[in-house]
Amino acid sequence: MRLMTLRRADGTTAAARLDGDEYVLLDDPDVGSLLAREDWREHARRSAGPRGTLVDADPAPVVPRPGKIVCVGLNYRSHILEMGRPLPEHPTLFAKFADALVGPADPVELPPESEAMDWEAELAVVIGGTVRRATPAMAEQAIAGFTVMNDITLRDWQFRTREWLQGKTFEATTPLGPQLVTPDDLPGGTRPSLTISTTVDGRTMQKADTADLVFDPVWLVRYVSAIVTLRPGDIIATGTPGGVGHARTPPVYLAPGQRVVTRIDRIGRLDNQIVSAR
Amino acid sequence: MRLMTLRRADGTTAAARLDGDEYVLLDDPDVGSLLAREDWREHARRSAGPRGTLVDADPAPVVPRPGKIVCVGLNYRSHILEMGRPLPEHPTLFAKFADALVGPADPVELPPESEAMDWEAELAVVIGGTVRRATPAMAEQAIAGFTVMNDITLRDWQFRTREWLQGKTFEATTPLGPQLVTPDDLPGGTRPSLTISTTVDGRTMQKADTADLVFDPVWLVRYVSAIVTLRPGDIIATGTPGGVGHARTPPVYLAPGQRVVTRIDRIGRLDNQIVSAR
Repeated sequence: MRLMTLRRADGTTAAARLDGDEYVLLDDPDVGSLLAREDWREHARRSAGPRGTLVDADPAPVVPRPGKIVCVGLNYRSHILEMGRPLPEHPTLFAKFADALVGPADPVELPPESEAMDWEAELAVVIGGTVRRATPAMAEQAIAGFTVMNDITLRDWQFRTREWLQGKTFEATTPLGPQLVTPDDLPGGTRPSLTISTTVDGRTMQKADTADLVFDPVWLVRYVSAIVTLRPGDIIATGTPGGVGHARTPPVYLAPGQRVVTRIDRIGRLDNQIVSAR
Repeated sequence: MRLMTLRRADGTTAAARLDGDEYVLLDDPDVGSLLAREDWREHARRSAGPRGTLVDADPAPVVPRPGKIVCVGLNYRSHILEMGRPLPEHPTLFAKFADALVGPADPVELPPESEAMDWEAELAVVIGGTVRRATPAMAEQAIAGFTVMNDITLRDWQFRTREWLQGKTFEATTPLGPQLVTPDDLPGGTRPSLTISTTVDGRTMQKADTADLVFDPVWLVRYVSAIVTLRPGDIIATGTPGGVGHARTPPVYLAPGQRVVTRIDRIGRLDNQIVSAR
């Protein structure tokens, strides 16, 4: 099953289920609200509101206001090893606030305060239940599905201090979506094996397989839920593979007018133009 | 003006205004909802619901579900200098999720996963407007008032990786409240000068003046709002002075049964017992 949050002409949003090239509107205002229903899977499957063609849809961030966005640092095995570092014992976790999110086809604002905007393609786990100290079975059940996030980062702000938050949560910099895809629709299920990539103006900058994660989605749900209750609509962004602009020689950063496409096979793609913030 | 969020017998909460030793219930479910009103100051001042005596009240976190909790690292001048470090050019920012909050008199859960729970008394700014890239005047206006937070930290988890989040956001570890006090009721107004302290089982562990901040509340609102829109109910915790347990020789950590009192003169006190999480 594939779910989206669509913007409507009146400024509101609606959750929708995909049905081939069409969408079917559900009676929840967004996928976050839908996931808060205990029976969201059944509810989404059987609902049948107005239909429309997907090509005309205006997608919002698939969960517009997650209660938590937990991001993981270094997590792609091949990238860690090629950097000559040991595999980490614990995942590096940091946060992003919901105000950072934009839709999958929205412009991404390069703020005047930064000169070092970089890309980070990530597989994002969307939580579909309430879970604390999850067993493996509980963690699998708590995963509603997966979507695509580009954890766009302002490297100059990220490295102002030792904590990364301020470079990670600038307003309107993080596209999320367009679809939540349930694990039963993906090879590997809750531990999907899919090609993830970023292109900038058509040039491939990142390319990896999501099966290369050191800490896989089920493991991460267990780990994070040991710390804090995970709730419907919460997001865990699982980290980015090699190929970011900051690690290149010389470093490469995003400029207004450039187009960043972030893609995970079978899940979807983000297609964002970089613009100057007013 | 002093505002609280009180728990009611039916499991709901209500915002309240203090009136001497009494509270007056307002028609919002909590202080976060109240602050979302454009005219919250006037609304809170003129409302007159049922009254009760403060001594019978059961306070919730003054804002139960802040959209953002932004915490500041090293920020007390005298403590930084005594550590032999230079004053920082930029504030160190990290996040805490709302699930970490507990009420001002609630038990604080020492989870079985940690053996290094520590205290961090902090002056917390409560945001009362929507503001981005604030001027000094906008920042002053956006400060609804101040409250007390103990940024209880699990040092073993904080230092598992270089990012602090996982030691900072454990479930039910962070008391916040009991009152929001508006700047007009405080010496120093939006840059208050007040004694802040922590005692553990009656022994003073931290004691400082909130005027010793390197980055004051107005400056922090400007800085954070350059990054992201601040919204009603958001919290900025301004950092802790010297005297934490982890920096002692040998280190001192909190144990079940101990009582931690966090106090800021004229604002209020948190009084929390450490308990083992089930």
